[in-house]
Amino acid sequence: MTRVPSPGVTDRAVCVIGAGLIGGSLLRAAEKAGRTIWGSCASAQTAQQAAADGFDVDTDTDAALRRAADLDALVVLAVPLPALPDLLRRVDRVAPGCRLTDAVSVKVATADAVRRYAPRARYVGGHPMAGTAESGWAAGQAGLFTDAVWVVAADDGLDRQVWADVAELAWACGARVVPAAVDEHDLAVAKISHLPHLFAAVLAAVGAAAGPGPEADALSLALAASSFADGTRVAGTRPELVLAMCEGNRDALLAAVDDALGRLGAMRGALASTGGLAATVRAGYAGRQQFLAAREAQGVRIPRTGTSFAELRDIGRRGHTLLGWT
Amino acid sequence: MTRVPSPGVTDRAVCVIGAGLIGGSLLRAAEKAGRTIWGSCASAQTAQQAAADGFDVDTDTDAALRRAADLDALVVLAVPLPALPDLLRRVDRVAPGCRLTDAVSVKVATADAVRRYAPRARYVGGHPMAGTAESGWAAGQAGLFTDAVWVVAADDGLDRQVWADVAELAWACGARVVPAAVDEHDLAVAKISHLPHLFAAVLAAVGAAAGPGPEADALSLALAASSFADGTRVAGTRPELVLAMCEGNRDALLAAVDDALGRLGAMRGALASTGGLAATVRAGYAGRQQFLAAREAQGVRIPRTGTSFAELRDIGRRGHTLLGWT
Repeated sequence: MTRVPSPGVTDRAVCVIGAGLIGGSLLRAAEKAGRTIWGSCASAQTAQQAAADGFDVDTDTDAALRRAADLDALVVLAVPLPALPDLLRRVDRVAPGCRLTDAVSVKVATADAVRRYAPRARYVGGHPMAGTAESGWAAGQAGLFTDAVWVVAADDGLDRQVWADVAELAWACGARVVPAAVDEHDLAVAKISHLPHLFAAVLAAVGAAAGPGPEADALSLALAASSFADGTRVAGTRPELVLAMCEGNRDALLAAVDDALGRLGAMRGALASTGGLAATVRAGYAGRQQFLAAREAQGVRIPRTGTSFAELRDIGRRGHTLLGWT
Repeated sequence: MTRVPSPGVTDRAVCVIGAGLIGGSLLRAAEKAGRTIWGSCASAQTAQQAAADGFDVDTDTDAALRRAADLDALVVLAVPLPALPDLLRRVDRVAPGCRLTDAVSVKVATADAVRRYAPRARYVGGHPMAGTAESGWAAGQAGLFTDAVWVVAADDGLDRQVWADVAELAWACGARVVPAAVDEHDLAVAKISHLPHLFAAVLAAVGAAAGPGPEADALSLALAASSFADGTRVAGTRPELVLAMCEGNRDALLAAVDDALGRLGAMRGALASTGGLAATVRAGYAGRQQFLAAREAQGVRIPRTGTSFAELRDIGRRGHTLLGWT
C-alpha cells in the first residue's frame, strides 16, 4: 500500500487523555508523525512511566484540556466507557467547545454520553481497531495502528473540519479510515469482535469443565491443540476490558447473539435428527472465504472537501478503506 | 523436553494405508526414525507423488497388507472414517490377524468398525493430534508430529504388545502419548476440537451475513480484526474433512453442543435482563488459564511392562503425557 503525502493535511496538535495501550500508542505514533502532543492520565504510576519515556504526560487533566482549548488542539479520549461521564463533565467545564474524538470501542453509547455531558464539544467519534493481549503504557507502541482500521463516525450533521482532523490523525498514525454511522459500527463490532469474545469464553469454559465443580478436565485440556488454542485466545483478555466493551454494546450484541443462537439451534436439531452438519459447515466455510476476500479490498482516496456523509457511509458499507485525500 | 532412547524399543516395520497429510507425514517421520516403511493409497496421482519422493507407495493395498502380514508389521490406517468399512474388509481378507492401528479422529466409531469388519485384527486405536490447514501428500512433513499429542486407546482387554508398538511408533515420530479410553477420547475431542470447528463456522457465518441473502456484510468484514480472524480460522478447513470428523462423533458432540447452548442461553438471559456478562466472561478467562496451565504439564515415563490399562487411563485423565519407557 503506497502512502503518499496528502495535500491540505494540517499538523493539528493532539491532546490524549488516557495513557494505556491505545492512548500510549497514540502519543508515540502522533509524535513520530511530527505532531505536537501531550496528555494526562488518572494513574500517577502510568504518568511517571510516560514521563520517563520523554512524553509530556501527567495526572493534571484540567491543565491538559486547558492547553488543548488554548491551542485549538484535537482532544482524544482514550479511556474505557465507564470513565467517560466524569471525564466529559470535565471537558465541558474546561474546554467546552473543543475538537473532540475518542478511542472507545462502542460508538452509540459514547455519542450519547457526549450529548449528555459535553454537548458543546465539536465531537466526531473514532475507533482505532488495534490491540494486543497486553495493556498499559508499557505495552504501547508507535506502530500499533499501522495498516489497522480506524473507524470514523460519519453521521449527518457532524463537524466536517473535525471529521478531517480525526481522519488525518488516523492516517498520520498509519491507519486506514473506514467511515460508518455509529449504529452500523456498533452492529458490526458486535458481530466481528464482541461475539467472538463471548464465543471464546464459552468454548474455553466448555473445554476446561470436567463437571459442575471447579475441577479442570485435564484429559480434554491435554488433547487441546490449535483449533482450541485459536478459538479461545481472546478469552485470555482481561475480563474488565471485555465486560466494558461488550456490556456497553448491549442492544447490538443481543442481535448478534440471537443470530448465533438461531444458527446453533438449527445445527443442534440437524445433528440430533439426521446427524448432518453440512449446512452449518458450508455456510461457515463460505463466510470465512468472504472474510479472506474482504481483506483484499482496495483502499481509496477522496477530495478533502465535497464528499457528503452519506457518500462516506457508502464507502464504508462497500468495505472500502480511505487512505488519504486525493 | 529431553528425549533419551528408551530401552526395549523394537524397530517394527510399518505399513501405512493412505498417503494424505497424516499418512504422508507418518511415512516420512517413520523413515527418518529408521523404520522399514511402505504403504498404499487409493489415488494413483498421490502414489506417483510419493514414489517420486522416493517412498515405496503404490495403489495395490492388497500387496501392501500381504507384506505386512509376512513381516508382522504394524498396519496404520490413515484414511477418513467413511473409507474404513471397505478397507477393513480388505484387512480381514488379506491380513486378518495383523497388528493394526489408525489415525482417525474419532475412536468409538472406528473401534466399532474394526469389531464388525476385521474382528481378528490385533487392533489398538490411535489418534495423532496434528494437522495443518493444508492436506494431501505434498503438505506432509516428517516433523508434523514433533511434540504433538498422540492418543493411544487404553481400554481393558487390548493387546499389550500392539499397545507398545503403537506407543513406540508415536515416540519414534517425536510425539507424546496420551492413553485414554475410546469413549473418553471422543468426549474430549468433541469439546476441544469438534465444537471449536462448529463455533468457528457459526461465527464466520454470522460475521459475513448481511441478511437472509448471500450478500456479504462488507462493513463488518472490513472491521474484522484478530479476534474474528482467530475465532474463524478453522472454518477455512475443507468442509468434507470437518463433516467426516464431526458427524462421526455425533453422540459426544451433541453433549458438548448442549453444554455450550446451555451456557450461551444463560448468557443471553443475563445480557437481556441485567445486561451483565461477568459470569460468562470470568468462566471463560478461568478456562483459558487452565488450558495454558495444562500446557506446562510434565511428561512421564513408565516401565515397558506391568502398567495396567486402568493405570494408563489415569495417567491420561491427570493430563500427563508419556515420553517413553523408563
